[in-house]
Amino acid sequence: MKEIKAGLLGFGTIGTGVVKVFQNNCQLLEERLGARLVLHRIADLDISTDRGVSLAPEVLTTDAAEVLDNPEIDVVIELIGGYEPARTFVLRAIENGKHVVTANKALLALHGDEILAAAAAKGVDVMFEAAVGGGIPIISSIKENLCANNFRSVFGILNGTCNYILSRMTKEGADFSAVLKDAQDKGYAEADPTFDIEGVDTAHKIAILIGMCFGTRVKFEDIYTEGISAISALDIQFAKQFGYKIKLLAIGKKDNGQIEARVHPTMVPLNYPLADVDGAFNAVRLVGDFLGPAMLYGQGAGMEATASAVMGDVMAIARNIIAGIGSRTPAMAYRPEAIQQLAIKPMDEIISQYYLRFGTEDRPGVLAQISGILGRHDISIASMIQPERKEGGPVPIVIMTHEAKEANVRAALTEIDALEVALEPSRLIRIENELE
Amino acid sequence: MKEIKAGLLGFGTIGTGVVKVFQNNCQLLEERLGARLVLHRIADLDISTDRGVSLAPEVLTTDAAEVLDNPEIDVVIELIGGYEPARTFVLRAIENGKHVVTANKALLALHGDEILAAAAAKGVDVMFEAAVGGGIPIISSIKENLCANNFRSVFGILNGTCNYILSRMTKEGADFSAVLKDAQDKGYAEADPTFDIEGVDTAHKIAILIGMCFGTRVKFEDIYTEGISAISALDIQFAKQFGYKIKLLAIGKKDNGQIEARVHPTMVPLNYPLADVDGAFNAVRLVGDFLGPAMLYGQGAGMEATASAVMGDVMAIARNIIAGIGSRTPAMAYRPEAIQQLAIKPMDEIISQYYLRFGTEDRPGVLAQISGILGRHDISIASMIQPERKEGGPVPIVIMTHEAKEANVRAALTEIDALEVALEPSRLIRIENELE
Repeated sequence: MKEIKAGLLGFGTIGTGVVKVFQNNCQLLEERLGARLVLHRIADLDISTDRGVSLAPEVLTTDAAEVLDNPEIDVVIELIGGYEPARTFVLRAIENGKHVVTANKALLALHGDEILAAAAAKGVDVMFEAAVGGGIPIISSIKENLCANNFRSVFGILNGTCNYILSRMTKEGADFSAVLKDAQDKGYAEADPTFDIEGVDTAHKIAILIGMCFGTRVKFEDIYTEGISAISALDIQFAKQFGYKIKLLAIGKKDNGQIEARVHPTMVPLNYPLADVDGAFNAVRLVGDFLGPAMLYGQGAGMEATASAVMGDVMAIARNIIAGIGSRTPAMAYRPEAIQQLAIKPMDEIISQYYLRFGTEDRPGVLAQISGILGRHDISIASMIQPERKEGGPVPIVIMTHEAKEANVRAALTEIDALEVALEPSRLIRIENELE
Repeated sequence: MKEIKAGLLGFGTIGTGVVKVFQNNCQLLEERLGARLVLHRIADLDISTDRGVSLAPEVLTTDAAEVLDNPEIDVVIELIGGYEPARTFVLRAIENGKHVVTANKALLALHGDEILAAAAAKGVDVMFEAAVGGGIPIISSIKENLCANNFRSVFGILNGTCNYILSRMTKEGADFSAVLKDAQDKGYAEADPTFDIEGVDTAHKIAILIGMCFGTRVKFEDIYTEGISAISALDIQFAKQFGYKIKLLAIGKKDNGQIEARVHPTMVPLNYPLADVDGAFNAVRLVGDFLGPAMLYGQGAGMEATASAVMGDVMAIARNIIAGIGSRTPAMAYRPEAIQQLAIKPMDEIISQYYLRFGTEDRPGVLAQISGILGRHDISIASMIQPERKEGGPVPIVIMTHEAKEANVRAALTEIDALEVALEPSRLIRIENELE
């Protein structure tokens, strides 16, 4: 029976999951593939830690070259993470004619063009299902079965840490900082959580999905990104009163040849399937011209779900090797020469509904002042809550708008914040009501 | 540029959708594929009806042979439906060395073995994403990216008509017959709805998914199938009180080398993602040993969503043709020689939680009698509702059990139904509480 040999770079959590698939599901992989899949070498600087899997000693090495330059290895699985040495290693693997599977969204967001161009030149595959949405087969679905669709939009809940924090805030009525602290104590959030909670990780991932759905190159730095650290228990509570949940939503839309690409806390209707994606789960919602709306949901991270996605890619490459062909489906779902550079719509020009919360003095006429300013900026009010007045402190006024232009909303808020009666900066959360 | 030619059999609703993809998304298909995809011939007995798409006259024919025996055609798309002549045509297309794409679940459920064996012998592909779950890319996901998983279970809401009726009954508190009548008037249900509402269509579909997930052959007639026609507004209302929704669920499980394969109305927890799949939407929930739980959700039927799935398959075949290879991934996700004939667990042996509703005389001691019989059959009660007694008619007693063996529940119900106080046959609805 034919043998296909893989080499692994990075023996961390996901790497250990990959080893487990090779070991536990060895027979299954063979029954589905008709060939034997072998994990030939694992390179990591630390090969002494016990990861709970037993391996023949010759499999482990501290020298990445034993994977990268090994003529027996067909597929290199890169699970080091970060930019370097991951970039150098991946380019060297490609240069050596090896196919690459990676879970590294940061690498792809920043060096994707360079890596994919090198792979195309060499005729090898670079696959990265595990980079977005953990075990969810979103990338393969866009590339393969959904590929007859012109996509109109792609929305994602793509960061487990943020979703876990927001879900707990929603359930417990707790404040951000308290939940973050607890999540860090339990190991669900990093000691330095900036990358997750400020939306950077989510932006890396939506950059990939937007590229694949719309056939365009999105520069990571052009994606408007706003994290969840300013979300308060109060906003979550008001959202619920209006029939919404707050999610860190990654949004991609295509309209008139322009792209919207943004990541920010977003109110989604409670009866919207995305609203039920809680805890560490991820989901991607797509709308295609023929498909209509669809959603793929699953575990967004973790050793095992991510290993499932990595191994799905390894299997796809193995099928190509068995068939005697190189790359069969373009890495970004469009042939490289068909990929465009569509303009990203400036944030000022987006149209959305808005949740606005003001903290003002408890004085007659305040609402008239605020609604007057909104009206002069062409912002019409859909509904409003002014809770019972309590002793002391600012009084909240909460307004849900109809569709309005972001620039107008920003200008109105600047004016309102300058009012004498405004006791704290206004809060703005965008609403996504697309039901189709 | 290379041209790949498809021929279509059956110019009905879905066929029209397929024509629209070819016409509207012609450039997109080319940008993704790097070749031109052409719809060369369409065969239908009726070629005079205006379907709202304009076609060159030479494309249309009433003679299926112009598709089946046409040496220029690479891929035959079978959208006739039913058993014959679909079976004969598909076998003839395969014999002529053509790849086949079909949406015909009935054909696959009954003649799948014969058709797939013929295709394997000839080295051509038979693909059928559109046969299960409309536009949802479930079949390609099981075959491709999720293929490194040993699946533990596969659940599906797979029939739009049933789900529409149950959703409206749930929302409106209406009875089955009233909603069915209205659905028929609106064209959402067939004049003879037996095939849908008695679960036959759902059983055809889960037979396919079970085969692909577990690597076994499931005979359609071995699937326990119970439709939704006996579901009452009362059951839906009680379900809600206990925190459940009633769905027609297709269930596949693998346990100790045995398969569970059944279709029946099922109570699912309200906070379970499947509970939110309403109306004409379909969903499939999978649990894999590495993937964990995942769900794919989308439109389960309709011209456009189904055409999206058909064309996804056509694109996959086109990629193989361009690469110069035949079948790359086995049709049923396992190589034919690895497919087993796992035993289906008899319904008597399944373990489930149960919702039981009795209609009895309003007399002291009735509950003691019923709970006594349940206890003697090793069925323990998890919770109970005995609503306020009204004048006249049977008094409902509703019991939710802990896990029990189906045979024991059946035996207990026979005994209870024979009691003098039992005024109507007892009702049984299974509960699916698997949260992982």
